[in-house]
Amino acid sequence: MSSGSQKRSIEEHRRDTEARAENPRLPIHLIADNIRSMHNVGSIFRTADGFRIEKLYLTGYSATPPRPEISKTAIGAEETVPFASRSDPGVFVKALQMRGIPVFALEQTRSSLSIYEFEFPNPVALVVGNEIEGVRQEALRFVDGSVEIPMLGAKHSHNVAVAVGILLSEIYRQWT
Amino acid sequence: MSSGSQKRSIEEHRRDTEARAENPRLPIHLIADNIRSMHNVGSIFRTADGFRIEKLYLTGYSATPPRPEISKTAIGAEETVPFASRSDPGVFVKALQMRGIPVFALEQTRSSLSIYEFEFPNPVALVVGNEIEGVRQEALRFVDGSVEIPMLGAKHSHNVAVAVGILLSEIYRQWT
Repeated sequence: MSSGSQKRSIEEHRRDTEARAENPRLPIHLIADNIRSMHNVGSIFRTADGFRIEKLYLTGYSATPPRPEISKTAIGAEETVPFASRSDPGVFVKALQMRGIPVFALEQTRSSLSIYEFEFPNPVALVVGNEIEGVRQEALRFVDGSVEIPMLGAKHSHNVAVAVGILLSEIYRQWT
Repeated sequence: MSSGSQKRSIEEHRRDTEARAENPRLPIHLIADNIRSMHNVGSIFRTADGFRIEKLYLTGYSATPPRPEISKTAIGAEETVPFASRSDPGVFVKALQMRGIPVFALEQTRSSLSIYEFEFPNPVALVVGNEIEGVRQEALRFVDGSVEIPMLGAKHSHNVAVAVGILLSEIYRQWT
């Protein structure tokens, strides 16, 4: 076996983590509205840490840390990702737009563009919504547009935490 | 509000689903080895359906349908994704390689390439591993190489189901 197929050691991972601790955050603002499952909230924290985004906003009835059910899937990322919470997502959407940051919903609408075709502006803000209902129609009124992940199978949508991973990955890829 | 921000209706989704039911599957073979959580297995089924992959292989101690805990996150995708199971992942790896399908591990090794830089061959097979340990070192011996998702934050890895979403999304994007 060549040494190239050797997994990186915990020690190497620790050095990698320390080396990137000073890197600037990716200027992505993520609004997670009405996420019912605390497992999904925790998973979104972990993914938000993985892409080192600027800030996570928990709105509607999305639970906020500290909660053991969130920590279970966030595994500590709830301590590393800056976040804010508020019932009304509109307040955050408008505040971001006032700062010149356009806001897009991850939602399948009649005019949504594929995430692979849409050129994400930098900085950018995104809204993701409830596991079943998606982004609330009332919230779609305030955003600057919507993007979607093309669905190829029998189901109509991805799990919201998986969808966040796909979305952040594509933005990161486009920017680097 | 313009009609463009109107969410697609259930009826429209149903027509979309029926329209793509005849489409060929993406020639991606996914081996999910030693996945401890049935929630993750279910979530991987749902994501595998979303990208309409060729086949899912459950190996090691990964649970297989039918199980209520898998259905909870698969929400029916365990019925739409072709799958096979076997304790030893090596049997599937070798069988795929015999058919001329190269097999890559999603794992951070000393030689793994970023998924954004690696050009995925078509068809392709991928191995993902345990939530904590990743792909077993013994399995890495048999694969044709490994790819990784760049980590930017404090944590060393993504949730395995989220990682599968990111991986399948990037392969789909490259191929279309």
